[in-house]
Amino acid sequence: MTNFDSVMLHEFLNGKYRITTAVEITEDNLKYLYTPGVAQVAQQCADDPKRTFLYTRRKHAVAVISDGSAVLGLGNIGPYGALPVMEGKAILFKEFGDLDAFPICLKTQNVDEIVSIVKNLEPSFGGINLEDISAPRCFEILERLNEEMNIPVFHDDQQGTAVVVIAALLNALKLAGKNIEDVRIVVNGIGAAGYNIVKLLIEFGAKSVIACDINGILNEKTGLHKYHLEIAKLTNSGNISGSLRDALKGTDVFIGVSKGNILNGDDVKLMTRDPIVFALANPIPEVPPEVAYENGAFIVATGRSDYPNQVNNLLAFPGIMRAAVEKQRKIDKALLIKAIEALANFKAPERFSILPKPTDKRVHMEIYNSLISI
Amino acid sequence: MTNFDSVMLHEFLNGKYRITTAVEITEDNLKYLYTPGVAQVAQQCADDPKRTFLYTRRKHAVAVISDGSAVLGLGNIGPYGALPVMEGKAILFKEFGDLDAFPICLKTQNVDEIVSIVKNLEPSFGGINLEDISAPRCFEILERLNEEMNIPVFHDDQQGTAVVVIAALLNALKLAGKNIEDVRIVVNGIGAAGYNIVKLLIEFGAKSVIACDINGILNEKTGLHKYHLEIAKLTNSGNISGSLRDALKGTDVFIGVSKGNILNGDDVKLMTRDPIVFALANPIPEVPPEVAYENGAFIVATGRSDYPNQVNNLLAFPGIMRAAVEKQRKIDKALLIKAIEALANFKAPERFSILPKPTDKRVHMEIYNSLISI
Repeated sequence: MTNFDSVMLHEFLNGKYRITTAVEITEDNLKYLYTPGVAQVAQQCADDPKRTFLYTRRKHAVAVISDGSAVLGLGNIGPYGALPVMEGKAILFKEFGDLDAFPICLKTQNVDEIVSIVKNLEPSFGGINLEDISAPRCFEILERLNEEMNIPVFHDDQQGTAVVVIAALLNALKLAGKNIEDVRIVVNGIGAAGYNIVKLLIEFGAKSVIACDINGILNEKTGLHKYHLEIAKLTNSGNISGSLRDALKGTDVFIGVSKGNILNGDDVKLMTRDPIVFALANPIPEVPPEVAYENGAFIVATGRSDYPNQVNNLLAFPGIMRAAVEKQRKIDKALLIKAIEALANFKAPERFSILPKPTDKRVHMEIYNSLISI
Repeated sequence: MTNFDSVMLHEFLNGKYRITTAVEITEDNLKYLYTPGVAQVAQQCADDPKRTFLYTRRKHAVAVISDGSAVLGLGNIGPYGALPVMEGKAILFKEFGDLDAFPICLKTQNVDEIVSIVKNLEPSFGGINLEDISAPRCFEILERLNEEMNIPVFHDDQQGTAVVVIAALLNALKLAGKNIEDVRIVVNGIGAAGYNIVKLLIEFGAKSVIACDINGILNEKTGLHKYHLEIAKLTNSGNISGSLRDALKGTDVFIGVSKGNILNGDDVKLMTRDPIVFALANPIPEVPPEVAYENGAFIVATGRSDYPNQVNNLLAFPGIMRAAVEKQRKIDKALLIKAIEALANFKAPERFSILPKPTDKRVHMEIYNSLISI
């Protein structure tokens, strides 16, 4: 099938989700499901809103929310373009996390408006999954919602990606026989994913992380906004400057969450012996895997399903959200660390299979189980 | 079963809706349903938002939105109390209109905020069903959303109730052998329903309508807000004043959408011979049906399922919304009139069965069919 078939499939389905009833409606049970019987349920929920987790679907209900400002690799295509993607995300939540997720695409891209709308949607949902919202706006939106809402809020492009990338790196380092404390790591692209990857790498004990963005190594001058400056402070106390190429020299690990074809074979050669190359830009990796291998890479991972070692968000978000929503627990550093460990330890890594398959439902259960107990 | 069973049933179900996938997800079709294939679908929807009606569920998707300010007969119990009711409404949309309806309860009761939020939800939905929002706020919210949104907006407590009440009245008048142009009609309670009932009665040719609210007959002085004054102008050009009892004298039809037990047998006797009494307050009618009959009523209708002649909104909203959403047509006077005619003409009325049963699915199809062709 070519990509054209994706359009045909979408037209055939006329939408990827359906809303169904949990029980057959009969003339007999109608008065208990709806008026007059439901009045007593309504009063009980009004008296104690926590009862909505018992008497309504709220305990499983997740809003998949986007403003369409950073959809896949397509950029700011707006909420209508985002809708088929959010529908897809919603059915993945169902299939792999047994959550009832509903796609909501907002007509506004104003940060204050988005924050206000999402907060006002709280009574209907047990959790919020933000999706495809551009950086640095997404950082403020996630921070504010986490502070101001009573249900867990997750931004998959930030936290989900970071979880899978770091689990993959831990496994790659095991195979390479290296410790995270000892290796030098370059992260290129300090957007939604890169920002969280750097912060979690440091949590996992990484001592030498160099963050690069469009102006090269991040420092006080090259950072574009306060979140860049935060990362510069964390990673570059010496305030060094230089290009991505300067950063790559003698590096053990390259993590690219930036854009396609920015490295060539010579760049890979600048790295240390047996380097780990995560070229995660989609659909075109930062360097073609075959080029990376030819120039000495020990392990290569990409975001693509047609190469080995796919780093796929789908490995993380169903289990994380299912646990967070069920426990009504904020998604904080401790939870993400636990998820990374569960994912990394799910199976013994191999050089061309550092992570499990995301369609293996046991992975999601394993992550869920590890989180439900904390 | 007592009402207690409604709570037990809700706890057992743990939510009345489920979100399911339209197609089984396999390793093989995942890349067409989600990335990378969905990117082409996303771009097409961005290029022409109308394509969301083809490639996503939008053509069937309805938001059931409440702020919890006027829930059933319980009053302003807030969004958490409203949630089980909106879930119930959502599954009725599915069962009787084959629409995918999702319950959204808002944490704000500020009119401007509600209007802004609902407008910003537009990309995910094909239609909006407002529910259990208090009068007179609901009038402004419906007006503004209808003006400012590109998808149909319906407020069932206003328009849906009016449609069923007037269809029921037309059939009662047929049985009584009276013409709507000739009869005198008192409408008591100019809230969400009453406001629309009065306006549509006039559309159907009623020449003598007296509107009453808490201060008696509505006139320039007794009206509480501009919507009351609008109704006073329409119905009371002579600016008469008086109590509900004054209004009832010699009246052919009483339509109560107010509160329970405000009339007794003597009040019914004030009316003309063989009067029609619609005592629609729920759960307690304005006058007990048996009392109305004992005192000369020819036809009595209530909002209750345990008396004959239940006036039930469920008769109208599934067919109306399905047609409006599918056609992407505003819900205006012409559409409501057509729905009233379709409902009234569905079956030959009998004295104790002036309307069809709402669980008879042919009614909804009949209304839908009559609307889809206009």
